[in-house]
Amino acid sequence: MARSPEQLYSELLAHLRQVALLESCGAILGWDEQTCLPAGGSELRADQSALLAGLAHERATAPVVGELLGELTSRGWPADAASPERANLREIARSYRRATALPRRLVEELTKATSLSQKTWVAARKQRQFSLFLPDLERVIALRREVAQALARGECDPYDALIDEYEPAMTAADIAQLFAPLRHELVKLIGQIGQSGRQPPVEILTRHYPADAQRAFSFEAASEIGFNFEEGRLDVAAHPFCSGIGPGDCRLTTRYDTHHFPGAFFGTLHEAGHGIYEQGLNREAWGTPLGSACSLGVHESQSRLWENLVGRSLAYWQRAFPKAQKMFPEALQGVSLDQFHAAINDVRPSFIRVESDEVTYNLHIMLRFELEQLLVSGELAPADLPGAWNERFQRDFGITPSHDSDGCLQDVHWSAGYLGYFPTYCLGNMIAAQLFDTARAQLGDLDAAFRAGEFQPLREWLNTQIHQHGKRWPTAELVQRVTGKPLSSEPLVRHLKERFGPLYGL
Amino acid sequence: MARSPEQLYSELLAHLRQVALLESCGAILGWDEQTCLPAGGSELRADQSALLAGLAHERATAPVVGELLGELTSRGWPADAASPERANLREIARSYRRATALPRRLVEELTKATSLSQKTWVAARKQRQFSLFLPDLERVIALRREVAQALARGECDPYDALIDEYEPAMTAADIAQLFAPLRHELVKLIGQIGQSGRQPPVEILTRHYPADAQRAFSFEAASEIGFNFEEGRLDVAAHPFCSGIGPGDCRLTTRYDTHHFPGAFFGTLHEAGHGIYEQGLNREAWGTPLGSACSLGVHESQSRLWENLVGRSLAYWQRAFPKAQKMFPEALQGVSLDQFHAAINDVRPSFIRVESDEVTYNLHIMLRFELEQLLVSGELAPADLPGAWNERFQRDFGITPSHDSDGCLQDVHWSAGYLGYFPTYCLGNMIAAQLFDTARAQLGDLDAAFRAGEFQPLREWLNTQIHQHGKRWPTAELVQRVTGKPLSSEPLVRHLKERFGPLYGL
Repeated sequence: MARSPEQLYSELLAHLRQVALLESCGAILGWDEQTCLPAGGSELRADQSALLAGLAHERATAPVVGELLGELTSRGWPADAASPERANLREIARSYRRATALPRRLVEELTKATSLSQKTWVAARKQRQFSLFLPDLERVIALRREVAQALARGECDPYDALIDEYEPAMTAADIAQLFAPLRHELVKLIGQIGQSGRQPPVEILTRHYPADAQRAFSFEAASEIGFNFEEGRLDVAAHPFCSGIGPGDCRLTTRYDTHHFPGAFFGTLHEAGHGIYEQGLNREAWGTPLGSACSLGVHESQSRLWENLVGRSLAYWQRAFPKAQKMFPEALQGVSLDQFHAAINDVRPSFIRVESDEVTYNLHIMLRFELEQLLVSGELAPADLPGAWNERFQRDFGITPSHDSDGCLQDVHWSAGYLGYFPTYCLGNMIAAQLFDTARAQLGDLDAAFRAGEFQPLREWLNTQIHQHGKRWPTAELVQRVTGKPLSSEPLVRHLKERFGPLYGL
Repeated sequence: MARSPEQLYSELLAHLRQVALLESCGAILGWDEQTCLPAGGSELRADQSALLAGLAHERATAPVVGELLGELTSRGWPADAASPERANLREIARSYRRATALPRRLVEELTKATSLSQKTWVAARKQRQFSLFLPDLERVIALRREVAQALARGECDPYDALIDEYEPAMTAADIAQLFAPLRHELVKLIGQIGQSGRQPPVEILTRHYPADAQRAFSFEAASEIGFNFEEGRLDVAAHPFCSGIGPGDCRLTTRYDTHHFPGAFFGTLHEAGHGIYEQGLNREAWGTPLGSACSLGVHESQSRLWENLVGRSLAYWQRAFPKAQKMFPEALQGVSLDQFHAAINDVRPSFIRVESDEVTYNLHIMLRFELEQLLVSGELAPADLPGAWNERFQRDFGITPSHDSDGCLQDVHWSAGYLGYFPTYCLGNMIAAQLFDTARAQLGDLDAAFRAGEFQPLREWLNTQIHQHGKRWPTAELVQRVTGKPLSSEPLVRHLKERFGPLYGL
């Protein structure tokens, strides 16, 4: 007897859940690699990760997926084009097309190469020697270019094919169009801030902040905004990240510098924002697109929203600052709330993206967006990266890093093969500002809530508007639905002017 | 063209290395479960572990293994019956026979059931409520009995089939024969010690030992005897264990009780002994029997040798005690070396196996050996375990636990489905003493070496005699080869008399 479309659909989802389960095993190994793995275990880990990635890829590309998709399409199921099932099938088909474009050999090689190159990157960054990292970077870029070609199938630009993995339905041209007006406004704002003559007392942030107290303060902040530690962790790693392993297990990392308060604190809020998204996904739909984050841009909107729009607001610190003073009496004695708030919102050109301010951050991203397009097109050889980086950095920021660990070695992304990923960070900033605008309009006085330590209304609004829908709509459509307007950089520019205007007397 | 036997053998080993790689992924998940997993992640972890175990089982039982084994046998390769290749094939065939006896459904069910039951066990032990654990225990025992039946194939006793997993080529009857004279001597020795009237000053071991100092002291001790932290870790878990993940990655756990010095310290030496064995295996042979530990009994001989024969010797503490006094000034001020040495060698009936002394420890094992035979045969229902435990405990030790966490809930083993495992602990004590006898005869004055902090000669001797050979010979043959004598309890009894005679003035 022929099976019903509902049965075929169930079978398809069950198959995909097995893939997700294998991938979640790989996610544990990936987390462990960054947080726990002894130095001597790198080679074994590379083999393990490659094997799991290969097995997951094998199942994700199994002919049965294509057959089930084809059968459901030919039967015109589901009839309702706006149904969640239809959205699920659309995204499953998209992933299947992408996955079947890549031979298993390439997937395994890339996994192994990136596992090893991340180790090399750590060593090279520590020793400030790009040359140590170059052979690994060359291998990773070459493999990633191969991936891009295979994905593009000659039908689109290879770099667009890479972007599509992180930000479905968006192209380099779309992004460039969104970035251009933003860049214009940023340059203007940075100029005004530079000319304001105001210098926030940033020295207070580099006093002695004991690591244990930072840890406790960060845990509490993450917990207060709603990250659930019964179903998650916060550990130390060289590069902060959030790994949503699966239902009930979401892991954040940060790093503590005893002479730099903002790094770990805002890093933790940031990763907790990602974590709250992961923990807020629809569990019933786990392992399917409807139970997965919409895109990296939307993911980043959640982290940046909590980190910046909430975490760097005056209202937040009206409540948190007295607690900080108790926790860090040595560093914050005699410091006023206004001084502290100005310091954590200091805007000035600096080398390290993850420690940069809300304004210049976006220029850091645009620089990487520019360079990685050249790396993928082949116009820039990996060996020439440090020179190209420093030249553009001087152009955008008026300063040049004195070594590559302050330059092109600072980020883990390229060592991990993540090309096409960086622009989503800046998209996230835009989306965050646009969502926050709407949340304020719908929820009323959020500042009063933050002053009272009430983050639940905002978190629940985000859950209902964003988290629960997974990949039901692509980013642009989701933003349009929630905010009633097309995605644009205007809300971000408005937010930056509102925040930094008063602080710098503009 | 027909392939050469060498090619077939290579193909077989390559296949088995893939199985080992999958199992090593599972080992990471297992370690993570005990050390890192958030409470909310248990269900997901059970699914993940079951999937990996199932995949590994599928590959371990793939027909190609049987075909390659059959082809090599029919070609009479290798001709040399004493060659390492022949030993490898013997053990591969043994594992294959065992693995193909079990349906995948059973393997997955057991993996999932034990993953969940270990969580339940932790909770039940914490709340001292056996009833919380009973349903899980019943399920695990039922599944394990099913496994035993399937493995025995009606050709041997089901319990022997379980022992064979941990201690190949040894039966319950062999073990009973080794245990009987030992039990006789132990009971006599314990009686003499009890009547000696001497009571070592054990109170000094339950003074305040700060956890951080214990951790530092344990790390240093493990490192000194030769555990390589470049290729390993030491973490905290509810139950101490050593997990040899694979080449370059071996992980130990312990637990720190600020009012019980011996627990973490000797626990760490013990696990480090296991770890030194794992780190000393032949790397070229990883993933094959020649690169795997001989048996659990031999494994335990390595841990107990470092923990007891080295770690509780007077010579060891002649060097280590002054360091301990510096590390724990509050606890050890005014304590003499002799007092301390007597305290760590205190012999008296007590409830917890892992904290018990070198003499009574073996009775703890014999009790479990007795009970688990009854659980497997079905003569003892899991529900009746607490009563049966307490009755026998009173018989052997003259005391009865006041709650089950001091009784049948104390060990993780049965919750993990490890039946047939316990006797290997006592075998390990015997083997350790027998090996140590031979090492002393061949290496000269080991006490002088320990006093000088030189552990390398003994470690290298163990590496050459034991670690490097993997499963080349079964336990009894390995012991005979290295010591020139059949395995017996005599060296252990002699050691116990030599150590405790002077301490108790016998």
